[in-house]
Amino acid sequence: MSELKEIRAIGVHDYDNWLEPKEFTYVPQELRPEDVEIKIEACGICGSDIHAANGDWGKPYVPLAVGHEIVGIVTATGEKSRFKIGDRVGVGAQCDSCHDCKRCESRHPNGCRGMIGTYQGVYPNGKTTQGGYASHIRVNSEFAFKIPDNLSSVDVAPLLCGGITAFRPLITANVGPGTKVGVNGIGGIGHMAILFAKALGAEVTAISRNDKKKQLATELGADHYISTDEENFSTKHQDSLDFIINTGSSFSEGHFADVMDLLTLYGRMIFITAPPATEKLTLSPFQLLKSSSSVGGSIIGSPDDIEYMLKVASENNIKPMIETIDISEENVKTAWERMVKGDVRFRFVLTGYDKYFK
Amino acid sequence: MSELKEIRAIGVHDYDNWLEPKEFTYVPQELRPEDVEIKIEACGICGSDIHAANGDWGKPYVPLAVGHEIVGIVTATGEKSRFKIGDRVGVGAQCDSCHDCKRCESRHPNGCRGMIGTYQGVYPNGKTTQGGYASHIRVNSEFAFKIPDNLSSVDVAPLLCGGITAFRPLITANVGPGTKVGVNGIGGIGHMAILFAKALGAEVTAISRNDKKKQLATELGADHYISTDEENFSTKHQDSLDFIINTGSSFSEGHFADVMDLLTLYGRMIFITAPPATEKLTLSPFQLLKSSSSVGGSIIGSPDDIEYMLKVASENNIKPMIETIDISEENVKTAWERMVKGDVRFRFVLTGYDKYFK
Repeated sequence: MSELKEIRAIGVHDYDNWLEPKEFTYVPQELRPEDVEIKIEACGICGSDIHAANGDWGKPYVPLAVGHEIVGIVTATGEKSRFKIGDRVGVGAQCDSCHDCKRCESRHPNGCRGMIGTYQGVYPNGKTTQGGYASHIRVNSEFAFKIPDNLSSVDVAPLLCGGITAFRPLITANVGPGTKVGVNGIGGIGHMAILFAKALGAEVTAISRNDKKKQLATELGADHYISTDEENFSTKHQDSLDFIINTGSSFSEGHFADVMDLLTLYGRMIFITAPPATEKLTLSPFQLLKSSSSVGGSIIGSPDDIEYMLKVASENNIKPMIETIDISEENVKTAWERMVKGDVRFRFVLTGYDKYFK
Repeated sequence: MSELKEIRAIGVHDYDNWLEPKEFTYVPQELRPEDVEIKIEACGICGSDIHAANGDWGKPYVPLAVGHEIVGIVTATGEKSRFKIGDRVGVGAQCDSCHDCKRCESRHPNGCRGMIGTYQGVYPNGKTTQGGYASHIRVNSEFAFKIPDNLSSVDVAPLLCGGITAFRPLITANVGPGTKVGVNGIGGIGHMAILFAKALGAEVTAISRNDKKKQLATELGADHYISTDEENFSTKHQDSLDFIINTGSSFSEGHFADVMDLLTLYGRMIFITAPPATEKLTLSPFQLLKSSSSVGGSIIGSPDDIEYMLKVASENNIKPMIETIDISEENVKTAWERMVKGDVRFRFVLTGYDKYFK
């Protein structure tokens, strides 16, 4: 049972003026047997929040509160919930799935074609979802995760979308001791990829456009650094990597193919960000043939993957580099503006929920 | 020691009139310590033979004898050869490598950037290579393989290039019992992919443009058949495959992307044929993201892979579907003409070497 009648949130009211977020309230979906209700205490600001808020991925409804790197305390549970009141849990980019397809049945609901996004999602009954720039959220408890005690809410929040996005390709590729992993692009997700690849025991090479992030990469634990503005970098470092995570969001910037040339025989490159919908990935088949290499995509991870990631994060005390900012209309605007300029090292986390939503 | 002073061969004398192959003789490379000299008794006709003979891949030298699915009897050995006179051995598409790069050192000389093709290759000393449409061949014995006694020379010949090309992606993807493998394109290589995938224990789906090869696919052991001219085939059979080998040689024929939609989450498609050099592979990043799928290339295999393939072929008595044809200028022309028309089920093998090269 829950006393909560409505949820306060901050969000977009007009996609064409998305940088003017305002407070609103919404009536949450009824608490279902499997659900959990969470009083939010921190929420990471993900690159997806910008794409969703500015209409890049369509303009389905307003008002819209984004935010899908949510951590908070359970305040109510359905009778089949996995949690009890008072538990500290996290929620990522997915809040439900169809529970009826092959992918759901095989414990990979992250690939469900009927997956419901934590925001900008629509339940079968037509109810739309609202994210973590809000006082509370209600989700299916299958998509909420117990947070290990040694990880603070602000540190763990960015792991729930950005972290799993970086982590899942590493485990798909069986990255471990002896694996030579490249991380192309050292930003919000790239820096977490370095942290997780090191935690899994890999030898990590950070790859960036120039030398500006070399020191940071070293602090994060990277063993090597390649700057793509170095002449003939792909020839000089050829065959140096077994696996590359590409975190750049564009595929037309020319050096995608050169970075792939760093792969050894049978190497794989996985990209993890969605470019503008019209952009294509164009490669020479001969490039893939000459090293018997592959390129693929990866989005988020399954609930099992997220729990494994939280275990690895806890055991290795993984902390992304974050900047906290108290939630308010003004601060959301400021954070979004700075995100667009790339002016954050590396991830904003909204805090001060108790103060704002008092 | 070898008595052999020159080798008789049949090959292209003019790329612009490639369909007029004529006999010629050439002086073989001196027998090096690691070499083996082979008196040829059978040679498969590979699609690569056509591309090399007609100038698709350049016009480096003439006369040129193609053929890289070679089986014969050892007639001379260097002092470090792996074989003894009288052994029956096979040679595939690669006859040597640099022996000095990371890929060679890691027992993957098939990926060596200095790899030397069995024909249309050039040794560091400038000597050019000639293939298996010839009385004999001399190669580094590292790239020759003992043929299991229970496999006939004509049956095993096509395995040495086509077979390993189909087999290597299957083992890279850990195909085995429980794996759902799709083979797109049922031709020279595709039909061997079905045989090997079945031998490895997989559940195999043959994929073709229409129903014409359904019976053949069943005879080869395929468990299922998908015709891409069936309306909405990719939706109807979605999520049905873990892994696809794409044997088609063009990437611009439209249904490449639809066939990829048959993959389940984290599925992989590997293509194994080289398209015209100008052709590009163009995909929507969203397609790869929505199933976290990958696409890649694969060419031939390492010596270790070839020996493993021969073991699997021997244990499972694998026999490709072949048509034998006695070697002669006229018959090479006829076989090439019929290859171009797709008029062979599925692979020609040249025989009658003793009769022609008497």
